[in-house]
Amino acid sequence: MTAPSENPADLDRHNPESEIAARAHAHRNWGRWGEDDVRGTLNFIEPSHRVAASRLVRLGRVISLAQRFDTDGPQKGWRRRTNPVHTMTDTGVDAERGTQGFPHGMGGADDVIAMPLQCSTQWDGLGHIFDHGYAWNGRRAGDVVTSDGDLVTGIEHVADVFVSRGVLLDVGRHLEPATGELPDGYGITAADLDATAAAAGVEICRGDVVLVRTGQYSRTRREGWGDYAGGPAPGLSLTTAGWLHRSEIAAIATDTWGFEVRPNEFDVPAFQPLHQVVIPNIGLTVGEMWNLDELAEACAAENRWEFLLSAAPLPITGAVGSPINPVAVL
Amino acid sequence: MTAPSENPADLDRHNPESEIAARAHAHRNWGRWGEDDVRGTLNFIEPSHRVAASRLVRLGRVISLAQRFDTDGPQKGWRRRTNPVHTMTDTGVDAERGTQGFPHGMGGADDVIAMPLQCSTQWDGLGHIFDHGYAWNGRRAGDVVTSDGDLVTGIEHVADVFVSRGVLLDVGRHLEPATGELPDGYGITAADLDATAAAAGVEICRGDVVLVRTGQYSRTRREGWGDYAGGPAPGLSLTTAGWLHRSEIAAIATDTWGFEVRPNEFDVPAFQPLHQVVIPNIGLTVGEMWNLDELAEACAAENRWEFLLSAAPLPITGAVGSPINPVAVL
Amino acid sequence: MTAPSENPADLDRHNPESEIAARAHAHRNWGRWGEDDVRGTLNFIEPSHRVAASRLVRLGRVISLAQRFDTDGPQKGWRRRTNPVHTMTDTGVDAERGTQGFPHGMGGADDVIAMPLQCSTQWDGLGHIFDHGYAWNGRRAGDVVTSDGDLVTGIEHVADVFVSRGVLLDVGRHLEPATGELPDGYGITAADLDATAAAAGVEICRGDVVLVRTGQYSRTRREGWGDYAGGPAPGLSLTTAGWLHRSEIAAIATDTWGFEVRPNEFDVPAFQPLHQVVIPNIGLTVGEMWNLDELAEACAAENRWEFLLSAAPLPITGAVGSPINPVAVL
Amino acid sequence: MTAPSENPADLDRHNPESEIAARAHAHRNWGRWGEDDVRGTLNFIEPSHRVAASRLVRLGRVISLAQRFDTDGPQKGWRRRTNPVHTMTDTGVDAERGTQGFPHGMGGADDVIAMPLQCSTQWDGLGHIFDHGYAWNGRRAGDVVTSDGDLVTGIEHVADVFVSRGVLLDVGRHLEPATGELPDGYGITAADLDATAAAAGVEICRGDVVLVRTGQYSRTRREGWGDYAGGPAPGLSLTTAGWLHRSEIAAIATDTWGFEVRPNEFDVPAFQPLHQVVIPNIGLTVGEMWNLDELAEACAAENRWEFLLSAAPLPITGAVGSPINPVAVL
Repeated sequence: MTAPSENPADLDRHNPESEIAARAHAHRNWGRWGEDDVRGTLNFIEPSHRVAASRLVRLGRVISLAQRFDTDGPQKGWRRRTNPVHTMTDTGVDAERGTQGFPHGMGGADDVIAMPLQCSTQWDGLGHIFDHGYAWNGRRAGDVVTSDGDLVTGIEHVADVFVSRGVLLDVGRHLEPATGELPDGYGITAADLDATAAAAGVEICRGDVVLVRTGQYSRTRREGWGDYAGGPAPGLSLTTAGWLHRSEIAAIATDTWGFEVRPNEFDVPAFQPLHQVVIPNIGLTVGEMWNLDELAEACAAENRWEFLLSAAPLPITGAVGSPINPVAVL
Repeated sequence: MTAPSENPADLDRHNPESEIAARAHAHRNWGRWGEDDVRGTLNFIEPSHRVAASRLVRLGRVISLAQRFDTDGPQKGWRRRTNPVHTMTDTGVDAERGTQGFPHGMGGADDVIAMPLQCSTQWDGLGHIFDHGYAWNGRRAGDVVTSDGDLVTGIEHVADVFVSRGVLLDVGRHLEPATGELPDGYGITAADLDATAAAAGVEICRGDVVLVRTGQYSRTRREGWGDYAGGPAPGLSLTTAGWLHRSEIAAIATDTWGFEVRPNEFDVPAFQPLHQVVIPNIGLTVGEMWNLDELAEACAAENRWEFLLSAAPLPITGAVGSPINPVAVL
Repeated sequence: MTAPSENPADLDRHNPESEIAARAHAHRNWGRWGEDDVRGTLNFIEPSHRVAASRLVRLGRVISLAQRFDTDGPQKGWRRRTNPVHTMTDTGVDAERGTQGFPHGMGGADDVIAMPLQCSTQWDGLGHIFDHGYAWNGRRAGDVVTSDGDLVTGIEHVADVFVSRGVLLDVGRHLEPATGELPDGYGITAADLDATAAAAGVEICRGDVVLVRTGQYSRTRREGWGDYAGGPAPGLSLTTAGWLHRSEIAAIATDTWGFEVRPNEFDVPAFQPLHQVVIPNIGLTVGEMWNLDELAEACAAENRWEFLLSAAPLPITGAVGSPINPVAVL
Repeated sequence: MTAPSENPADLDRHNPESEIAARAHAHRNWGRWGEDDVRGTLNFIEPSHRVAASRLVRLGRVISLAQRFDTDGPQKGWRRRTNPVHTMTDTGVDAERGTQGFPHGMGGADDVIAMPLQCSTQWDGLGHIFDHGYAWNGRRAGDVVTSDGDLVTGIEHVADVFVSRGVLLDVGRHLEPATGELPDGYGITAADLDATAAAAGVEICRGDVVLVRTGQYSRTRREGWGDYAGGPAPGLSLTTAGWLHRSEIAAIATDTWGFEVRPNEFDVPAFQPLHQVVIPNIGLTVGEMWNLDELAEACAAENRWEFLLSAAPLPITGAVGSPINPVAVL
């Protein structure tokens, strides 16, 4: 059996089933870290890699890689993915008017949020995607995620993992130096990833968290959300599955809604085929809707594309993902 | 005018108004960082302090300082502070049964959360507490936090700040070596903080994030939540206000619900007087409900009480606080 | 002082302040039912009126006047008015798979909703609108509705009131017999209301609940929501304030988002001026987003425009409105 | 095959499976109203029954049968059933202070609620309970209720049904005339229901909505919620299944959390066996947590136990139940 092609032109655009299956089988990591594993490729992060990454902190500058969490976000309700609703249960206006009932001039403000965990900058946990009814490590999907949540690979199990070396691959800037923005529908290839890394003089290592900037979010901030949530977008081609597997990276994130190129690369109905390969089969944690613009500016200014990355999820019991505020420390 | 006493025995237990006012006036930082400031003591974190802190990473070990976010948490509904409610909008059981409508064997799980931002491990932002109708930096409370949220000092303004040196002051272990747990109602003094630091051989520096372990959370995990949310607890005495001011720390957090000792140190109705001094007047960001137990074990094993701390809040627009998953990197 | 004009042509389109004030003062019911009143014009419903209304039940047919409550509703997030989010905490798929942990073959499904109380078919309570900082019956707005909710006129106080005679005024059908739909921007006048009632052979009586059909909802169902939530719409002219006052009706409802004509009838910035007159000043409860289409068909078929109406709000403590499923019984 | 016993003493307390199965098979209404039916016993309400019921309106008095919906309700989080959380998105305090941005003195208050649909007074829809993986009318549970909600028997399908004759059976008052309250754990029998009806001089008819008052809610209001949500309670015995079937009532409701007696009548693990018989098999809609106290007083004063009942659910698309404010009109 030959390795699946890494050239998008080779994809059989009428047969997503077989193209997905070939990559799922070629790159499957089931059992690699034991049958009880709940961390997948996050296991690639060795403590020593963190120590080395911490030495990349030279400026002491922290850059937030999160988009805002607010009601005016990009979500339009697809599969009940709405924008966050943030409301106050106590306010300064109340405090100033003296209606709160506290003694000695005390006043307070409290607040509440309701939101899909996938509404803004997030990690997709290992229970987020299934392949033919199977979840990460070969478990039956129905044994993993019920209405009670992810009983096995809930995001709380990786609360203490996400500190590693981050590497920014600014593919938008590399391929479109004039604008820094890939066009919607552009499928990033393994060759593109390698070329961007080479141009940046950085080598992707086992345990890295790779951040791929397409530039779509920059366009969105200029032009409005439009169809950012699910519409056409640049992103990774299905054919990068092999690269994502052999690079032994710990996690990957992009500045787009859905990580992979959209529309997906088929002429028949298809939906996020690369997710189907990488999450349940490779065990790869995927980040979406990251804001990589300020980081890209800083990396370009420094001509240094690696940094300490800290991106811990909220340990929401049984969650299949988490809103996050990842930070790069340069 | 003499400095307010740092001995709890000197407090006039019938006059919280004057005890609070004395400390508010003595330690007020309004205007210290300009009239537009939205960060308060977080301004103390210099980039060089972060670089130095990063060199504390020697083991490459990450310890999560968050409690779990789940329905079985400690909240009992006081001022509508409930526990989080996490629900699924798609599940693996659905995916396995094939009812999701996706092509090519694709399946997914998504989820939603509704929660008070103060329900579990959190930062209290600068808009969380007011003193006689005034918010941080001398602004009118009603100009800062309306029903639309914190229009001025929303937590999103400090999304890129919370990386610094963390120092654990395990007061529980220092004062109660047998159990490591302070009794409920014990008010930690400035002298206790100094003694704990001295015993640990650590000096508190400008820009540090200080973590104070009382041991109450350990007791809670053993005995059940009980009245963890608002009941009697060890915590900082009102008389530590001067220490919190002159130490020029960036932020402080404890393993208790409410940071300060409870019941509060007065014989007349009082409510969280130290909050009233430190948040609106000193501009100090306060963390609550942190889980410091694993960190305490690790620090004791290493006999090293300082580490790199990363604790970025979610940039929820206009929030007066944020759920967080702080991590210590040793 | 002369009564405010009931001819829209007489409105000073540059002076909403004075046009509102004239009507507020002319029609103010403050004190009419005592200083402690929390029901406003709902007081007009006499028990005998209910007995008479019950005799209108001749067919035994129940018609729901509610729109659906679902994620695909018209809301677009204005002032955080989103569509409802309904999620399951237990499902039949789980039950069938046997993962719920119940004995003897028992299975269950449960669900949760998060929604603005104004998201779909609703009553606006008396605490919903203020006039220059005053609420119904002359109370200070800040004494009535704080972050804790409506402390005085919460919707729970009228949980047992909303059964009365309902009268449908199908103004859409009367003025536009070909289509049954008024154009967006059409301001219904007092004369229109009278003419529609006269043509229907019905006399509006004290204590009636009047339902005004514009036909806009019919158009929306045919063409999609568009700007149903806040965009141009037919509705009552500000000049109907006198009619609404002297008719001594108990409540009124329309099939539109906002009850009154939109854009509002001014050439300078204005927002829902009729609300400002009728809710805090007249004490009139207003219903919005009702589905009057099936009822209109039934009334036309019977040539009978009166019926028993039952429209109890959920007694949500402190709510300024309530989602409802009003029913007409013919 | 003999009819299952209606004497609780005959129950095999070690075999809930067989006791449930006997009743499920004896009383199953699957197919009775066609294979597409979504209303079950609500089909028993004939229009003529509504006309007759309307003639029971003699006083014009409306009594709300709802408990309050608020944060201080009885729920404790079992299966994520929490109390409602009601928050304001705009308040009168803001309006009075002038921070809302509306023109011409306009001010407003809006609000949001998050709640389980089963948190307070409610109807259980036909998709709420399953028997061995089967839902009402013999459908597979997984074909009916997925994470997307009840795709077949959602509560929206009965939005226009719930007006009928209501009959109050005040079993508490009949059996315990001194207190009007049955003790927790008392299982109401078919004989009790008949005796209460006979004493009241009322005959239960096809299409009636029967309200059974145990008095537990009165006790709760006096003594506090305690374990109202799921603890010991009076309620219907499993042995009333035959009565519930042959009486051809449209729906039934009680003043307790769970309709049937608790603990359930078995010495081995059992959970709500009567639900398992009546909802998926008989197709009976069940109401819970109704407030029947004021109604009981009124009925006793009038010595009249029948009335017009109106209890429409909110048409929440796909909901397996609905919060309601049922009203009796006397």
